[in-house]
Amino acid sequence: MASIKVKAGQPYRKKDKLARGDVTGVIGLIGKTKGTLSISFSEKSILVIVSKMFGEEMKELNEEIQDAVGEITNTISGQARQKLDELGWSLEASIPTVITGRNHTITHITSDPIIAIPFVTDDGEFTIEVCFEE
Amino acid sequence: MASIKVKAGQPYRKKDKLARGDVTGVIGLIGKTKGTLSISFSEKSILVIVSKMFGEEMKELNEEIQDAVGEITNTISGQARQKLDELGWSLEASIPTVITGRNHTITHITSDPIIAIPFVTDDGEFTIEVCFEE
Repeated sequence: MASIKVKAGQPYRKKDKLARGDVTGVIGLIGKTKGTLSISFSEKSILVIVSKMFGEEMKELNEEIQDAVGEITNTISGQARQKLDELGWSLEASIPTVITGRNHTITHITSDPIIAIPFVTDDGEFTIEVCFEE
Repeated sequence: MASIKVKAGQPYRKKDKLARGDVTGVIGLIGKTKGTLSISFSEKSILVIVSKMFGEEMKELNEEIQDAVGEITNTISGQARQKLDELGWSLEASIPTVITGRNHTITHITSDPIIAIPFVTDDGEFTIEVCFEE
């Protein structure tokens, strides 16, 4: 979507409960089970990603960035749901919510495992987190 | 739950898209339609509310506060879902997510109406926001 080089790190099961970011998209997933998917960006990484998506330089975390993070959250949850559907897990997604605020933390309130997938671009990191009730 | 005086203000349809808070709980709602419910607290209001819930003074936005906000989010979405169920709208809720960070903003990525319900306590405000796809 943004034609940037993205390197996915090794997914890991989180021990602590906190992710950090400057902008985060959150979307609920519900079907045979329930869960949540979030994607947290540093300010630098999302400014570069959206600048490349739009073909113009974005300089601040404004409404356009928030809408773009909502769109990215929808797209990623759609791709994840498609893969899960192939495995027999049919899930619906809620309306995405975008949180903006420097160095906020994200906590999924569950005793079930939370899987974090770190991504590295040339311009900073972002992290996808997914949790489901077992 | 916390035995505090809470005064609900008049619900209103939001014109701008931003809510603000220091701690926010977000939960997805999915059934015949899809939506999202969020509840945003100022630091002062949530510290007093959780202090009264626990019967001990809470001084900072720590993990106990985050868990309590998750529980409050689950409880409020459960009560809202019960009311909606009586109206023939059966909805399931996702795993709640709690965001902590001073003066963050919350944006629900939808073109449908967002309803905000302001609440006032003796110790500060909190706001519930709900949106559904029409």
